[in-house]
Amino acid sequence: MKKRIFTAVLLLVVVAVSTSMAGAQEINSQQGPQFDSPVVADDNTVTFKVHSPTAQTVAINGSWMGWGETLDLQKGDDNVWSVTVGPLEEYMYHYNFFIDGVSAIDPKNAHALRDGVRYASMLIVPGEASEIFEINDVPHGTLSQVWYDSPSLNLNRRMYVYTPPGYESSKEEYPVFYLLHGGGGDEDAWTSLGRTNYILDNLIEAGKALPMIVVMTNGNAFQTSSLKTAPDAPVLTRENYRQYSGLFEKSLVKDVIPFVEKTYRVKPGKENRAIAGLSMGGGHTVTATTEYPDVFGYIGVFSAGIWEGNTGLEEKFTALKNSGINLYWVGCGEEDFVMESNKRLLDMLEQTGIEHEYHESAGGHTWANWRDYLAIFAPKLFK
Amino acid sequence: MKKRIFTAVLLLVVVAVSTSMAGAQEINSQQGPQFDSPVVADDNTVTFKVHSPTAQTVAINGSWMGWGETLDLQKGDDNVWSVTVGPLEEYMYHYNFFIDGVSAIDPKNAHALRDGVRYASMLIVPGEASEIFEINDVPHGTLSQVWYDSPSLNLNRRMYVYTPPGYESSKEEYPVFYLLHGGGGDEDAWTSLGRTNYILDNLIEAGKALPMIVVMTNGNAFQTSSLKTAPDAPVLTRENYRQYSGLFEKSLVKDVIPFVEKTYRVKPGKENRAIAGLSMGGGHTVTATTEYPDVFGYIGVFSAGIWEGNTGLEEKFTALKNSGINLYWVGCGEEDFVMESNKRLLDMLEQTGIEHEYHESAGGHTWANWRDYLAIFAPKLFK
Repeated sequence: MKKRIFTAVLLLVVVAVSTSMAGAQEINSQQGPQFDSPVVADDNTVTFKVHSPTAQTVAINGSWMGWGETLDLQKGDDNVWSVTVGPLEEYMYHYNFFIDGVSAIDPKNAHALRDGVRYASMLIVPGEASEIFEINDVPHGTLSQVWYDSPSLNLNRRMYVYTPPGYESSKEEYPVFYLLHGGGGDEDAWTSLGRTNYILDNLIEAGKALPMIVVMTNGNAFQTSSLKTAPDAPVLTRENYRQYSGLFEKSLVKDVIPFVEKTYRVKPGKENRAIAGLSMGGGHTVTATTEYPDVFGYIGVFSAGIWEGNTGLEEKFTALKNSGINLYWVGCGEEDFVMESNKRLLDMLEQTGIEHEYHESAGGHTWANWRDYLAIFAPKLFK
Repeated sequence: MKKRIFTAVLLLVVVAVSTSMAGAQEINSQQGPQFDSPVVADDNTVTFKVHSPTAQTVAINGSWMGWGETLDLQKGDDNVWSVTVGPLEEYMYHYNFFIDGVSAIDPKNAHALRDGVRYASMLIVPGEASEIFEINDVPHGTLSQVWYDSPSLNLNRRMYVYTPPGYESSKEEYPVFYLLHGGGGDEDAWTSLGRTNYILDNLIEAGKALPMIVVMTNGNAFQTSSLKTAPDAPVLTRENYRQYSGLFEKSLVKDVIPFVEKTYRVKPGKENRAIAGLSMGGGHTVTATTEYPDVFGYIGVFSAGIWEGNTGLEEKFTALKNSGINLYWVGCGEEDFVMESNKRLLDMLEQTGIEHEYHESAGGHTWANWRDYLAIFAPKLFK
């Protein structure tokens, strides 16, 4: 049995030892039978367990299943509910239990993720395909939460900045990759679910990607930072939400880029700036690159495209083409519900003669795809 | 009703809007009646709610209650369980639901915290006493996850570094405060539960604390980073855990300090170095300052002391006194289970003639106390 991470045994010892030395664990633990969850077996089947004497139903939804699908756990004699799934492909997943219908993270799993306002437990089925986003024994870049002034939005705002291994000790200048999250997410998303810093560490160490700075902004123009609404933001409605249209993209170009280029050792010029975004962030990428065609040389649109009714773009895409770009890369899952928008973008690129690479993957609108797209896109930058 | 943070309404709109524009929210949400949880009323009573048609029991434990105590929620006609508590003092709390005995974070609350291997939902009852650890509209320092080589432990390890507002744009050198977590915690603890970066932002803006760098290490010598055990670490037992004794403290002095002083603009000398730790980290502080008496000028021991059987310290404390220190500060809750250890430390300080300040607070071994101690201790540094 290859038991994975899941430090229950380790923890018991630490708590046992540290109780005598003053343990600092304040959140209440649960009593009950001892077991680990999840446990990945040699054949990559995965067993999930949770203890409840009185629950009527216990179910699980995992990112390897369909949206909203659940699978029931079965109750054992010891009141431990369990289910075994798979074998699963070697990759990263997230899942939730539903205890009598209430969504819960796995109490035995110390690894959780936040996606917008929701939490899920993380599962890695380790193998070749998971190595790219694991914390490996390679040089690691620095990941910083940085606050900057955005005059365009009249806000002080937070973003994440990844500087590559060696940044602090070198005098070199680096190119910058601006990486945008999707709707419902925020500036945490690309490092929490997206594992961007570890993907970059691994790509750089393998010689596949060049050392670069990655800037991960908050694309919600009504927020100062994750989950924090600006003090004077209105209660959002469909109508006034639309008033924010284009504002984030403006702040990215007018506020974020000047701040980054003043604060970090950055190579100047369009050919040293890349931008990519997923879903809503793909929309932001389309807008930022058509409204400001001279800013970004490398462009990636992940699981997005041109929304229906967004007209008058042909002239802007033509201007983008004429301004000269290094790369236009488009990725979408074949089952993604944005496929029509994606196709409108591909048509527009054809129509305006913008050379582009198109990657159609399996699957839908998922972080599994976005991590993959990042790992494919980043090695193409600044070369 | 002063409704707090809790972005359910906001989120619905964002998701509604972003569905038409390609929402990126992948973690499944739940169906059911619409309500917010928690809701803080004008009188600072707090109502918690969770929806379950089939649960047999729903209970809550909050950090305002005793360890292991629970309070039952009552089921309403709409299958929404609820309970109102308080009024609570204006402060920061954490809590868990127990759905048929299974620990769960509040599915309606987007703010969760990790303490070691466990998660809890966060609650702030806003007011004067909560301002110190809130994200206020003040200049914010940068919080970075930084990896460094530790030859003493033969590991590449992670820590957090807080640089104060203005660090990036100034040429100044800063003093450094090394801040250590407790047993069961790791390098995330002082920013997740401890809110150190926001406490420092607020103290510095108010002119109460001097701008300083704060370094928050991982005190578990068998880990490379939070939840990640070193590849060649043994399965821990009470016996071999003791073999790690003193190793973290050595790596702090021999590896961390040289790295920090090489990488950041740091004022040199003992009078520009502070150290404090909570619980196990208080023990680390006692060891680091007695084993290496010439390193730290400012010393804080929070909810810790001298463990029974730790003999032969008198000579070392005398050497510490003779080396000259700027401040020795001790804090402990009157109900804390480490009170005896704390008293042994106070006796030792008396006995060896080390001038010290002692702060005995209400309460026990809690983050509420540690956040307070930090807010009291940091303003005393480097003055």
